[in-house]
Amino acid sequence: LETKLPAVGTTIFTVMSALAAEKGAVNLGQGFPDFDCDPRLVQAVAGAMSQGLNQYPPMAGVPQLRAAVAAKIETMYGRAYDAANEITITAGATQAIITAILAVVRPGDEVIVLDPCYDSYVPNIDLAGGKAVRVPLVPGSFRPDFGKIAAAINSRTRAIIVNSPHNPSATVWTDAEMRQLQELLAPTDVLVISDEVYEHMVFDGQAHQSVARFPGLAARAFIVSSFGKTYHVTGWKVGYVAAPAPLTAEFRKVHQFNVFTVNTPVQHGLAAYMADPRPYLELPAFYQRKRDLFRAGLARTRLRLLPSEGSYFQCVDISDVSDLSEADFCEWVTREIGVAAIPLSAFYGDGFDQRVVRFCFAKKDETLNEALGRLAKL
Amino acid sequence: LETKLPAVGTTIFTVMSALAAEKGAVNLGQGFPDFDCDPRLVQAVAGAMSQGLNQYPPMAGVPQLRAAVAAKIETMYGRAYDAANEITITAGATQAIITAILAVVRPGDEVIVLDPCYDSYVPNIDLAGGKAVRVPLVPGSFRPDFGKIAAAINSRTRAIIVNSPHNPSATVWTDAEMRQLQELLAPTDVLVISDEVYEHMVFDGQAHQSVARFPGLAARAFIVSSFGKTYHVTGWKVGYVAAPAPLTAEFRKVHQFNVFTVNTPVQHGLAAYMADPRPYLELPAFYQRKRDLFRAGLARTRLRLLPSEGSYFQCVDISDVSDLSEADFCEWVTREIGVAAIPLSAFYGDGFDQRVVRFCFAKKDETLNEALGRLAKL
Ligand SMILES: CSCCC(=O)C(=O)O
Ligand SMILES: CSCCC(=O)C(=O)O
Repeated sequence: LETKLPAVGTTIFTVMSALAAEKGAVNLGQGFPDFDCDPRLVQAVAGAMSQGLNQYPPMAGVPQLRAAVAAKIETMYGRAYDAANEITITAGATQAIITAILAVVRPGDEVIVLDPCYDSYVPNIDLAGGKAVRVPLVPGSFRPDFGKIAAAINSRTRAIIVNSPHNPSATVWTDAEMRQLQELLAPTDVLVISDEVYEHMVFDGQAHQSVARFPGLAARAFIVSSFGKTYHVTGWKVGYVAAPAPLTAEFRKVHQFNVFTVNTPVQHGLAAYMADPRPYLELPAFYQRKRDLFRAGLARTRLRLLPSEGSYFQCVDISDVSDLSEADFCEWVTREIGVAAIPLSAFYGDGFDQRVVRFCFAKKDETLNEALGRLAKL
Repeated sequence: LETKLPAVGTTIFTVMSALAAEKGAVNLGQGFPDFDCDPRLVQAVAGAMSQGLNQYPPMAGVPQLRAAVAAKIETMYGRAYDAANEITITAGATQAIITAILAVVRPGDEVIVLDPCYDSYVPNIDLAGGKAVRVPLVPGSFRPDFGKIAAAINSRTRAIIVNSPHNPSATVWTDAEMRQLQELLAPTDVLVISDEVYEHMVFDGQAHQSVARFPGLAARAFIVSSFGKTYHVTGWKVGYVAAPAPLTAEFRKVHQFNVFTVNTPVQHGLAAYMADPRPYLELPAFYQRKRDLFRAGLARTRLRLLPSEGSYFQCVDISDVSDLSEADFCEWVTREIGVAAIPLSAFYGDGFDQRVVRFCFAKKDETLNEALGRLAKL
């Protein structure tokens, strides 16, 4: 059987989680919390099931949840989306991204991705018959290079995928950077797919620069986010996309023939839970404390800390610790030190190795302390 | 914005459900139960959430659920699938079907669909860059026409999609028909995508002829089913695909970049619930009784009954009742009589109108009786 995706193997996240489980390593590889969600959220979903809310919801999502999402975006970012025609609930952010791509990328279209990037984007573009054009972020700083982005845009460019807070580098775009993107795209028809799944994890008093804040971007954007990441339920697989009505109409044409719709009781539970904004308003402080705890421990090793401006990731430079490639180091540190990490090379098209690996600090303090104890051996 | 799917509007199911809600009609249109699932199933899922099973499951699905599916298939149909490499849990059957299509259909490939067919198949094929080749089932009887299928196969044919029990016609393929398909495909490389979501709804003592029973078909098949339909939880959006390891490998390459994985607590709850086979073993009798109740009532109207061999659908010929087109009749019967139905023309590429509409009898007896009372006016 000839494969349509010759470059695709099992995701690095699955590989490293399996190795961590096999070796009893502390799993700071795959991004997910090892603590539980708020029990009130579980009760809200269980309550919806017990009330018999177990059949198909409307295709685009439960109206109460769409309204809650629209209200949140308006309060946080000042843009009003019409819950009826501009918000769609998805089976996680990954499904939102592939659906947006399938909806707008035609065979031969080019889509700009900024390397390093999340590993689903390029296969998604391939499946749509498009061509991914990889533009590197500035090596070392991971900032966007607008000269390079401008040079990559041509008449075949259909979209650009942006992602802030950024996985894997934990950088956060500034207001000035978003404005530069807005200016750059103004004379073009290029669409924006904005992966904002870490929107509620921005640190040090900075604000998340959602594409929703920038009218010239929002008018051409699919904004994707994830309830799983915000509410510590990555296994529930529920997210959303916000996009102007004409983009949403195209999105829903594909969505209805991809998953049709998303788990009903989970949607009702989330809608009820979102009435209280505190869980997401308190999230930056919650994760900043974990970041600081983790960084303080790492600072006592020979791993060199990179900034972590947002997301629940912390990157470190391994040059002073090891001569191994990133991938070999990650395998070694999992097997021998007992802490799993993810090589940044897995996020590059060409496997670029800059001696940097990623840890996830969305873990109980005791887990982080256990990992730090093991890493102290480095 | 130029659309990639010019032929696609809102699904007929969404349109008719909205009209039914607006008019207070009894909704026998969209296929879903109006009664609730077993409370033990709700408890099993709520229990999994309370135990903290809320983070990413393995990409291919929770191992216990995959094992339960493999055991069920082996017991019912006598084929052993390897749960590790041949079963994948999906976000419903629709997501399983598009994922199989994206995994194997290359630009320019042809895929045979048997008209009338479920409305997602053809847009799914379009999105993969393939070409849907519509072969009609025999008009009137809805049996497969192997002469026509044979004539449609050529070197570009990548796959055929089959669906028994059949939506919308409620026919069930016989052992002889499956054997004919097996013989026809034997000298070819054509893959099979078998939509078996109504597998546990086959009536009158007949057996479901799963493709899994036919080694020459199973070796080339993606077999798709749905927990939502079997367990009365259509809103949970969970299904599975069983396929030989090489096909499953290709399937998972796309699956991991489509939804990545499926709701964790739902999977654990289903795994526990499946330990008892009675709920699905008793399903044929449960739905046969409803079918018989509904048919007995319809027999007193001037609607002419077609056979309902399986699924939870009942088709009727409206010729003696109305001169309207199927679509206009469905709108009229919803508005004026207060019972929603689905026109069969919605399942044909060319909108073929044979004066037949579909009712769903997955409803409480009181709902069916209320609908029959209203339909008595015809
Ligand atoms: C879908 S598994 C990967 C989770 C994640 O987003 C990451 O670790 O980068
Ligand atoms: C996904 S909504 C349609 C439900 C269904 O399978 C049908 O009514 O045919």
